[in-house]
Amino acid sequence: MGALKALFLNATLKSSEEESNTEALAKKVCQIYDNENVESEVVRLADYAISYGMDPDMGDGDEWPQLFEKVKEADILIIGTPLWLGEKSSIATLAIERLYGSSGETNDEGQAVYYNKVGGVVVTGNEDGAKHAAASILYGLSHIGFVIPPNVDTYWVGEAGPGPSYIAAGQTNDFTKKHVEMLAYNTIHLARMLNEHPIPAQGNLLES
Amino acid sequence: MGALKALFLNATLKSSEEESNTEALAKKVCQIYDNENVESEVVRLADYAISYGMDPDMGDGDEWPQLFEKVKEADILIIGTPLWLGEKSSIATLAIERLYGSSGETNDEGQAVYYNKVGGVVVTGNEDGAKHAAASILYGLSHIGFVIPPNVDTYWVGEAGPGPSYIAAGQTNDFTKKHVEMLAYNTIHLARMLNEHPIPAQGNLLES
Amino acid sequence: MGALKALFLNATLKSSEEESNTEALAKKVCQIYDNENVESEVVRLADYAISYGMDPDMGDGDEWPQLFEKVKEADILIIGTPLWLGEKSSIATLAIERLYGSSGETNDEGQAVYYNKVGGVVVTGNEDGAKHAAASILYGLSHIGFVIPPNVDTYWVGEAGPGPSYIAAGQTNDFTKKHVEMLAYNTIHLARMLNEHPIPAQGNLLES
Amino acid sequence: MGALKALFLNATLKSSEEESNTEALAKKVCQIYDNENVESEVVRLADYAISYGMDPDMGDGDEWPQLFEKVKEADILIIGTPLWLGEKSSIATLAIERLYGSSGETNDEGQAVYYNKVGGVVVTGNEDGAKHAAASILYGLSHIGFVIPPNVDTYWVGEAGPGPSYIAAGQTNDFTKKHVEMLAYNTIHLARMLNEHPIPAQGNLLES
Repeated sequence: MGALKALFLNATLKSSEEESNTEALAKKVCQIYDNENVESEVVRLADYAISYGMDPDMGDGDEWPQLFEKVKEADILIIGTPLWLGEKSSIATLAIERLYGSSGETNDEGQAVYYNKVGGVVVTGNEDGAKHAAASILYGLSHIGFVIPPNVDTYWVGEAGPGPSYIAAGQTNDFTKKHVEMLAYNTIHLARMLNEHPIPAQGNLLES
Repeated sequence: MGALKALFLNATLKSSEEESNTEALAKKVCQIYDNENVESEVVRLADYAISYGMDPDMGDGDEWPQLFEKVKEADILIIGTPLWLGEKSSIATLAIERLYGSSGETNDEGQAVYYNKVGGVVVTGNEDGAKHAAASILYGLSHIGFVIPPNVDTYWVGEAGPGPSYIAAGQTNDFTKKHVEMLAYNTIHLARMLNEHPIPAQGNLLES
Repeated sequence: MGALKALFLNATLKSSEEESNTEALAKKVCQIYDNENVESEVVRLADYAISYGMDPDMGDGDEWPQLFEKVKEADILIIGTPLWLGEKSSIATLAIERLYGSSGETNDEGQAVYYNKVGGVVVTGNEDGAKHAAASILYGLSHIGFVIPPNVDTYWVGEAGPGPSYIAAGQTNDFTKKHVEMLAYNTIHLARMLNEHPIPAQGNLLES
Repeated sequence: MGALKALFLNATLKSSEEESNTEALAKKVCQIYDNENVESEVVRLADYAISYGMDPDMGDGDEWPQLFEKVKEADILIIGTPLWLGEKSSIATLAIERLYGSSGETNDEGQAVYYNKVGGVVVTGNEDGAKHAAASILYGLSHIGFVIPPNVDTYWVGEAGPGPSYIAAGQTNDFTKKHVEMLAYNTIHLARMLNEHPIPAQGNLLES
């Protein structure tokens, strides 16, 4: 078995030219992945032309298919999202839609292509909405085939109202640090387990 | 027209023997109501024996009917809730269920009994979940007949993770103060408007 | 006072070349608006190049500003959305983000520019998710300044699992018809009331 | 290793004297558990005096502690809930609150007591709300230590509006049947895997 692979889909509304608080938090997780010999890649979704729609490839320059190839190669998929009005971003919603639109594909056993992969989420915002965004994303991932390990919702939000974002606030929150660690290790633990002991193809084939 | 009446249903899990952060926030709104000659009452739901179920009166000592009388007399209904795991409390959920169970009653025009009343919400928590709880409660109220004025979701939450609650944190957050004012005045403004100009009984009768 | 204006932002993932179930439901509301002398326009958001981001104008061909002009002229704003995995669409999320990003503008009284406008929502899906999507959208609109009248969440969803969409199912559901009527009339009633009796500029200025 | 144990907490608002649609759906899962030699028990929460509050034992006749013993013995925990106004029931909210209040307890490794257990959800309603309720419950379970296998959100809802409930509708929906099977088998598969290969105590201790 080679090294585990982790893919972060960062759904900030900003392209790579701008600093992303969500990416800063994702990088904390990557540091642990590095130490544990897990390969990781952070993809800034706003850099890609991702079409709206439910087909696996919407054509006309749709760049989702190349991202989907990365998803298929990953053992661990983490969605990163900022918060706006207490909700995950439009790009995070789009990512879930496209993952859903590609969920008809199967693995060699006939299970959904996302089986034996684990999912998680990192969220940042000035204030409020992290748990709601995490619940929505983790549910979406679970419903299409991912395993959700315990404590894989890592986030930072500030006190009610406008205020500094994660980076400006200093990245020092102990609760967030603790959950970075839990997310990193529990995704590794479960991904290893599922690599060694895949979910039996019984009662869970996509078509049966 | 007499004075407007505002009713707070405080859905803290704690009975009146204990201090409630949500009540402390509700009291800020009451101060403005006092100044504006709006009568207000805060009811601690945990002090009452409120049965589970969808009948207007579940019998066997169910104390919802006496609370429902208060709701019917109110021009303004504010649900107050703490946050647990990012969600409104079980008692807040129960309050919405019982309001829903009583929603078959009509006013003299044949509209749902909650027509021409306005709704709002106050939320407190150590951290995260206020907007999600507010959305759920305001939607529930709107769906059964209440008018939702702008900016009637007043809340306080602290930074991510464990930490002081609203009272211990000093009740000094400017964003929260601003929203106390908006909630208080907009509920008053809309309640007055609806008292003087009730929603015409056209296209909105419960049975038609 | 001239005729009221209603604007539908249809957040289907499909451009105008394709049939939209959500638009079919919106059109039912428009029929009542026509009868009641309310001007209405349905905009297919997927036809526009709407940028991601929180500035009122993101530049580089961003077409949100022209849509925002329509919003400002409208008395009634209805967001229409399909459901995917039980959630409002990515384009609906984008619309709320852009409305939020434009919410710093004020009217002549110094209130948020959305004051004295009313909001509503129409939702269609093969199955499940309408109330959750409606709660999210109505909350977002309420939080930035819209008034939410009673019963302005009109939807159709089928039984659990795959199945026909709204148009294919025949558009005959009595519950949906009833709620089309309630949405149409209650948005008209409240919009008229707010036109004649705007919300007093007390306690609700954006900067104070 | 003995037989796996599955515990259903049925959060219907009705006590055992009344028929529960949610229980009818839970029983479908139990049939598969029986065939696969998994012991199962369905507990009707409305039969118990479960106090409000966040202490593991609220005293004064609180019957949560005896239910918590059952949770600790279970390998699989399924929350069953009806839908009211598109939300999980007040009793389901209460169950999550009490599980959360008991989440400070640890296993022999120092992980949260719910580690190496798997969670799932069954939902029934006349119409709409299943995915939202499932997302909320599965998130809550995941956040306190449960593993969420793929496709463990089994539900039935009817078409928009009032209509027959799950039992009256005939219990014949193919989508629901398929998801009964996926829930049953995937909870078994993951529970077995975690029994044989517990999550390593690295990076996930409750106090560290």
